[in-house]
Amino acid sequence: MTGPDGDRKVRAATWFEELRDRLVAAFETIEAEGSGADPAGRFERTPWRREGGGGGVMALLHGRVLEKAGVNVSTVEGTFSEEFRRRIPGAAEDPRFWASGISVVVHPRSPLVPAAHMNTRMIVTTRAWFGGGADMTPVFADEDDTRAFHAALEAACAGHPSADYPRFKQGCDEYFYLPHRGEARGVGGIFFDELDSGNWESDFAFVRDVGEAFLDVYPRLIRRHMHAPWSDEQRRAQLVKRGRYVEFNLLYDRGTLFGLKTGGNPEAILMSLPPEVAWP
Amino acid sequence: MTGPDGDRKVRAATWFEELRDRLVAAFETIEAEGSGADPAGRFERTPWRREGGGGGVMALLHGRVLEKAGVNVSTVEGTFSEEFRRRIPGAAEDPRFWASGISVVVHPRSPLVPAAHMNTRMIVTTRAWFGGGADMTPVFADEDDTRAFHAALEAACAGHPSADYPRFKQGCDEYFYLPHRGEARGVGGIFFDELDSGNWESDFAFVRDVGEAFLDVYPRLIRRHMHAPWSDEQRRAQLVKRGRYVEFNLLYDRGTLFGLKTGGNPEAILMSLPPEVAWP
Repeated sequence: MTGPDGDRKVRAATWFEELRDRLVAAFETIEAEGSGADPAGRFERTPWRREGGGGGVMALLHGRVLEKAGVNVSTVEGTFSEEFRRRIPGAAEDPRFWASGISVVVHPRSPLVPAAHMNTRMIVTTRAWFGGGADMTPVFADEDDTRAFHAALEAACAGHPSADYPRFKQGCDEYFYLPHRGEARGVGGIFFDELDSGNWESDFAFVRDVGEAFLDVYPRLIRRHMHAPWSDEQRRAQLVKRGRYVEFNLLYDRGTLFGLKTGGNPEAILMSLPPEVAWP
Repeated sequence: MTGPDGDRKVRAATWFEELRDRLVAAFETIEAEGSGADPAGRFERTPWRREGGGGGVMALLHGRVLEKAGVNVSTVEGTFSEEFRRRIPGAAEDPRFWASGISVVVHPRSPLVPAAHMNTRMIVTTRAWFGGGADMTPVFADEDDTRAFHAALEAACAGHPSADYPRFKQGCDEYFYLPHRGEARGVGGIFFDELDSGNWESDFAFVRDVGEAFLDVYPRLIRRHMHAPWSDEQRRAQLVKRGRYVEFNLLYDRGTLFGLKTGGNPEAILMSLPPEVAWP
């Protein structure tokens, strides 16, 4: 983490770890509040090293409220292959990169609780930028939930000159779309990439607020529905909806495909996949 | 189905339908022999039309022995997009194509019965060729099964000057491989593409024998294990193994990606995906 961006790299990586710890605590609190015969789930942390430089920690929970929740933080460095050099900003001049980020995916047990995903990352080549976003995937969309989720992200953007909420919201709708099904993956959120306003402090402040917003709103939405009973039919619909999630991630998700093709840790990358899925 | 290849097109498409009917009958017989409180599964046929020309019939069974079995026959024609024209033999000169084929995927309920896949197809552009293969995916590989399956396909190749068993077997091992896991999808079989020996009758005779071999050997292997009891642990291993199957099909399978990108019927294309899957 040396070089002209050394201090910024340390601050970003430290923030991602701090956010991870707070998310882990929030999800474990929800597990403790859950009912049923099963014990409250706890996160298990598994560190991994990346061949070529760096590594990360996977934190995975199998719980009674959150059937599968993964929170990954990774900080890696290396050299892009020829193929990627041409496609990654600033890599044509020098193929070395550094990247740090947090990725959160939650698949709740109840089909009435929406699944959600949040990811923010800092990438450094000869340039430096942030990317990320947050989005929600309910099985049965609830208007109040959707409104609250969008409002939280809009508020996270407000006041940040680095953020352009309407563009980031539209970017999310465009990104999380399954053309072969003609279906959106979920109800959207925000999505941004190559964020470099020229003011790193301002960009970083916005990225932190995305994490804060997710940490605030998503647990509230889980709590709204986690004690409501559900039917076998609703559970079945959830397993089928999760199939669409898998289709999106394996067919289209740039982060997944990028990670798998650059020798990333498949267990960490595919931690996003739901625990039980059906294609009837 | 006009043009210089008209008669060959009719004969190939008719064969794929005949093979479909025989496979459907074989699998329904197996269902009738199954035990348990659930009724024997029957195939449901759903015809579909392709925008642009042609269509197909999906035949899908949810049974007590065969948790999900799909047999698709489709015969379509159209015009390749610019992207595909450059990549498909004979399409650069004239982008029109005709294609007919059968695709079979079986995901048995018992983790002791191997899953299997067979596909053969005839493609016509300004050239004409066959492609296809058969391969098997056990959860717990059984040496006798593997040997019998390979022997059946080797026998199907024997005596056909169009077939090169060692090359087709190696092609299968190379094709059904998950680089991100460093794992084979299954135990292999045969895989061939752009088969055009210059003697269409000879190539077609070989392709029919691939179908005959699969029809003969796979039901025998199902019957070997279908009455054996299995444990929850073995079932769990099956659901995880099926996750690898999904990963392969959505990340790498050329037929799946080609079909989804050329506006194929997603329900028919993704009928290959297992009914229940786990990513723990």
